[in-house]
Amino acid sequence: MNDLFLRACRGEAVERTPVWMMRQAGRYLAEYRAVRAKADFLTLCKTPELAAEVTVQPVDLVGVDAAIIFADILLPLEAMGAELRFVQGDGPVFPDPVRRAEDLGRLRRADVDATLGYVFDALRVTRRELAGRVPLIGFAGTPWTLAAYLVEGGTSKQFTHLLEWSYRDAAGLRRLLDLIAEVTVDYLLGQVAAGAQALQLFDTWGGLLSAERWREVAAPSLVRVLEAVRQGAPGVPLIYYVHGGAHLLEASAELPVEVLSVDWRMPLSEVRRRVGTQRVLQGNLDPAVLLGPIADVEARTEAMLRDGAGGGHVANLGHGIFKQTDPDHARAFVAAVKRLSPALRGA
Amino acid sequence: MNDLFLRACRGEAVERTPVWMMRQAGRYLAEYRAVRAKADFLTLCKTPELAAEVTVQPVDLVGVDAAIIFADILLPLEAMGAELRFVQGDGPVFPDPVRRAEDLGRLRRADVDATLGYVFDALRVTRRELAGRVPLIGFAGTPWTLAAYLVEGGTSKQFTHLLEWSYRDAAGLRRLLDLIAEVTVDYLLGQVAAGAQALQLFDTWGGLLSAERWREVAAPSLVRVLEAVRQGAPGVPLIYYVHGGAHLLEASAELPVEVLSVDWRMPLSEVRRRVGTQRVLQGNLDPAVLLGPIADVEARTEAMLRDGAGGGHVANLGHGIFKQTDPDHARAFVAAVKRLSPALRGA
Repeated sequence: MNDLFLRACRGEAVERTPVWMMRQAGRYLAEYRAVRAKADFLTLCKTPELAAEVTVQPVDLVGVDAAIIFADILLPLEAMGAELRFVQGDGPVFPDPVRRAEDLGRLRRADVDATLGYVFDALRVTRRELAGRVPLIGFAGTPWTLAAYLVEGGTSKQFTHLLEWSYRDAAGLRRLLDLIAEVTVDYLLGQVAAGAQALQLFDTWGGLLSAERWREVAAPSLVRVLEAVRQGAPGVPLIYYVHGGAHLLEASAELPVEVLSVDWRMPLSEVRRRVGTQRVLQGNLDPAVLLGPIADVEARTEAMLRDGAGGGHVANLGHGIFKQTDPDHARAFVAAVKRLSPALRGA
Repeated sequence: MNDLFLRACRGEAVERTPVWMMRQAGRYLAEYRAVRAKADFLTLCKTPELAAEVTVQPVDLVGVDAAIIFADILLPLEAMGAELRFVQGDGPVFPDPVRRAEDLGRLRRADVDATLGYVFDALRVTRRELAGRVPLIGFAGTPWTLAAYLVEGGTSKQFTHLLEWSYRDAAGLRRLLDLIAEVTVDYLLGQVAAGAQALQLFDTWGGLLSAERWREVAAPSLVRVLEAVRQGAPGVPLIYYVHGGAHLLEASAELPVEVLSVDWRMPLSEVRRRVGTQRVLQGNLDPAVLLGPIADVEARTEAMLRDGAGGGHVANLGHGIFKQTDPDHARAFVAAVKRLSPALRGA
């Protein structure tokens, strides 16, 4: 049983740095594309055997130290009654965005077993197939990030509708965030019951807010989720990832999580200097490095390991792996962490 | 002659804080939309009388303390030989992206008088129409940001091609950046000769890079531009704006500019704490505030002025004004700066 990742998340001394990659179950793998050719994206998410198959692929093919269940952060919104489509090239689309308090009547507090049971089934199948080789990570989006997509109706450059609502009717938006938070608690506890051994919260759009506004608008519903999950599933490591959040470091370090997952924009040593050495850091090689020469992948991975050696560290990319990545370069990254980190621990 | 903006940029003591807004000549104004109904976007850019007309509109209609010439940062790339289209809803498109050193042969060092003379003409017409009421700002994109669009073929979520090139062939990309820099120097000096009294460099995509990589990849060509313009147009204040650059603050404070224009994500007081009080700061009200109630616009503008009072300050938004903004809210912002700042200077 390789529980290196879980021990590192808990801040225990480990023999080497564990490594996995955000979006490691994805299009850069021909084996993933072969599965995807048989099923559209939502069908893949909702077919436990297929979701489990692609979840396990990078463990076998790339050698990562953790699996992360294949799913989409937006699935709970569909479970709450919002129609969700994935349009080729355009990403997720909510044809009927929720933009004011009156729209909240269209959403319901989902029964997660009835509506998201396929994710729990996928976790159970995956745990069986992993057979203890590596731990399995569950995940969810933060309420703020889910609201961002639901309010805009999809992705956006500026999230004007979301920000407009936040200034026009903060109380109304808070009701949406709280409703998403309630469902997210059930969803994450259901994931743990089904076999998830650690949980990552993805805050893709938290960085839109200043620290003051993030604390005021986005953090309360997120803290509610984290505290309820902590209480319902004690001992399960919690990881918070925010994209473009260099200005939120100190604020996010107040969250009740074991691990802060940081993007590639700031050196791990500087993050530690600002948030202290209590938190385990996850990250943060620029995923674009994997598009360059393998010698460079190795050199930059070594530099990242040295930079992160001042405290607990889970190696990862600073963002999801690009679909254009040559799998050999992903393997070079993973192998470099495994080969180089034993000598660099505490360097 | 209202030269308040220029004096504030130079760090002189001023009687009140000057104020203007990024994208102040734009779609939130019915008067702009009326002009735009007569001409497509590129035609508007290339017709000096029309460009001058929309440049002056916010001075008359909103009461800002500076005008900024109506143009697009991508025009110099078209002048260099890249075909540029503006597709309704999709923004700028370069149908033939430049993605490797071999593609550089398709670009030429543009003769800016022959290819961008319409911008110079627009500046001359605007200066005449302003008749000294407020100063006129010229601008350009940074070489890195222009390259971002040219390499991707338009805007992008992740700028994979650009980043890939930066790791695969740093020297080749540097040649592109240097070529853009040469044209940008001529273009900015031409703007000054035609009447621009201050120059802003827009680095929309600088924030994609870590500080180390920004210094290595993006900064050298930008510094070359700034130094050449400084030498060719001494006394003209230079302003650097980077979007999403909280992690680049210390690095960008090394640039030879008078003014750092910062987005809404970080309080001005914290920016000063990190970069010192030598630089004048420009910004940084969240443009989404203008979508909320006027009482909130006024309260948050006052808070921003108090926060920025520890040194030289030019009031602005932290990003371009949203097209959905009610002009009355823009006027409330400008009026609040004028009304409140005299008492708050040095508060």
